[in-house]
Amino acid sequence: MRICILGAGQWGRCVAALLEEKGYDVEFRHHTDRRWPQPLDALLLALPVQHFRQTLVRFPPPACPILSLAKGLELPEALRPSEIVRQVWGENTSVGALSGPNFASEIAQRLPTAAVVAAEREEVSLLFQRILHCHRYRVYRSTDLIGVELAGALKNVYAIAGGICVGLGLGDNALASLLTRSLAEMTRLGRRLGARPATFRGLAGVGDLFLTGTSDQSRNRRLGKLVAQGLPVDLALQRIGSVVEGYPTTKSVVRAARFENVRKPIATEVYQILYEGKPPKAALSQLVEPIPEQEEEEFGES
Amino acid sequence: MRICILGAGQWGRCVAALLEEKGYDVEFRHHTDRRWPQPLDALLLALPVQHFRQTLVRFPPPACPILSLAKGLELPEALRPSEIVRQVWGENTSVGALSGPNFASEIAQRLPTAAVVAAEREEVSLLFQRILHCHRYRVYRSTDLIGVELAGALKNVYAIAGGICVGLGLGDNALASLLTRSLAEMTRLGRRLGARPATFRGLAGVGDLFLTGTSDQSRNRRLGKLVAQGLPVDLALQRIGSVVEGYPTTKSVVRAARFENVRKPIATEVYQILYEGKPPKAALSQLVEPIPEQEEEEFGES
Repeated sequence: MRICILGAGQWGRCVAALLEEKGYDVEFRHHTDRRWPQPLDALLLALPVQHFRQTLVRFPPPACPILSLAKGLELPEALRPSEIVRQVWGENTSVGALSGPNFASEIAQRLPTAAVVAAEREEVSLLFQRILHCHRYRVYRSTDLIGVELAGALKNVYAIAGGICVGLGLGDNALASLLTRSLAEMTRLGRRLGARPATFRGLAGVGDLFLTGTSDQSRNRRLGKLVAQGLPVDLALQRIGSVVEGYPTTKSVVRAARFENVRKPIATEVYQILYEGKPPKAALSQLVEPIPEQEEEEFGES
Repeated sequence: MRICILGAGQWGRCVAALLEEKGYDVEFRHHTDRRWPQPLDALLLALPVQHFRQTLVRFPPPACPILSLAKGLELPEALRPSEIVRQVWGENTSVGALSGPNFASEIAQRLPTAAVVAAEREEVSLLFQRILHCHRYRVYRSTDLIGVELAGALKNVYAIAGGICVGLGLGDNALASLLTRSLAEMTRLGRRLGARPATFRGLAGVGDLFLTGTSDQSRNRRLGKLVAQGLPVDLALQRIGSVVEGYPTTKSVVRAARFENVRKPIATEVYQILYEGKPPKAALSQLVEPIPEQEEEEFGES
């Protein structure tokens, strides 16, 4: 079985190592290439979401099932990676998504990890589960492609919020409250696009939010922390040095028409801090302090 | 208004300081006392759960509303604090519970914190919300007393599990997966006793699990960590030095008739490690690795 990975960043290389350990023949393609290996049984997309479209258009539609490994939403319309794939390569393209609490560095260290593969068609999620699953990387399946992609993308926005909270020195109590409200906000945004709320209580939702909201291994959380400590956003991004998916995703969540009229106070504050120069301290008082009644009612709290 | 706090540990003293700042007259009572201050407008119980019964029986039933500040379940029947209060002082006693992601040390440092007061009768939760709420300690209300008490008690069991995972060096990916499964398990246990699932997605549930599962400020998490690092349980408890509510709560969850036939693989492994000498490494492979299908279905993962 021959598998191609488009994009050779840390995440793509980490997944390639998993696949090679299982005996698969893995070939990389880069954004400068124009052809797929032949024959090809599966294609994994490990590109930054903002580079998806410009890279995919260079290649012909592949004849095999495709799995997105990306966690973000495309500007300006907040499109999910699988939506971009279908826009470029046709509506009937077989495409799924991988998500879950997965720091590449820990998978590379062979630490036990779990993840979810989602696809609308069960044969697609079964194929990628079979390809990826092993003792140290346990892969579950979901049919909620919308929910799994949105959960993976949105948690990056809330990991930035968590980093801001930490960078301001507000403490663990405040961070836990903020992440609780973030989970509710992610679920609301997801529901608007047809995601199942239960997906946000699984590995791709609360699992990944636990991970990225509480660990400095997350680039998104580090961005929030640096900005809260007073570093200008452009310098903070430069210091982190590689793609911070939550940065464009925040903009697409707050500006895209598809999320209009969904209550999203936390994403909005993060947006104002990152893009409008709002002082983090002023914004965070909005995040940690007054919690509107409507949201509380979702937990039965008022 | 005069408020009495029974129990003068760190948590009782922390809440007393909040109340005194708001201008209330606070008096402590200890387990050696036998009388309430007169008159008395509200009573807060800040005792370890295993000391509730033996302490309450020494006092006459107070004529004012009561709030439990405790997070645990009584051995051997896994009774909630408010159930103990009603068994001792009568079924019609007005009693609520306070819970949420609250490290006392951070409240003492005046860091922003949120919590939930739950009571079946709204006048009770309204009273305690009014008494406790302030700018830096935001108090929400819930009518799900069962859920709020269970969430606060159960998360201690899963914080121990989290500590074991960390003590074994399994990494952040594994911890995030474990806490995701823990949230599902807590919700299942709660549902069995009539709690509302939504409560477990609020501050008292996922909020407190975020906090105690990911911070070494939690004594419960420290217990798990020390045991995983090879310290015998009795020495680990001794080293921590103060009450670790999750320790008896684990036993009551696994042994009590009221939780029979609820699937609880994580609590069971924690129990076997703490009470039956099962090696943490063997037990954790059960926690992190094979996840039964039934549970996955709750998130739509299989």
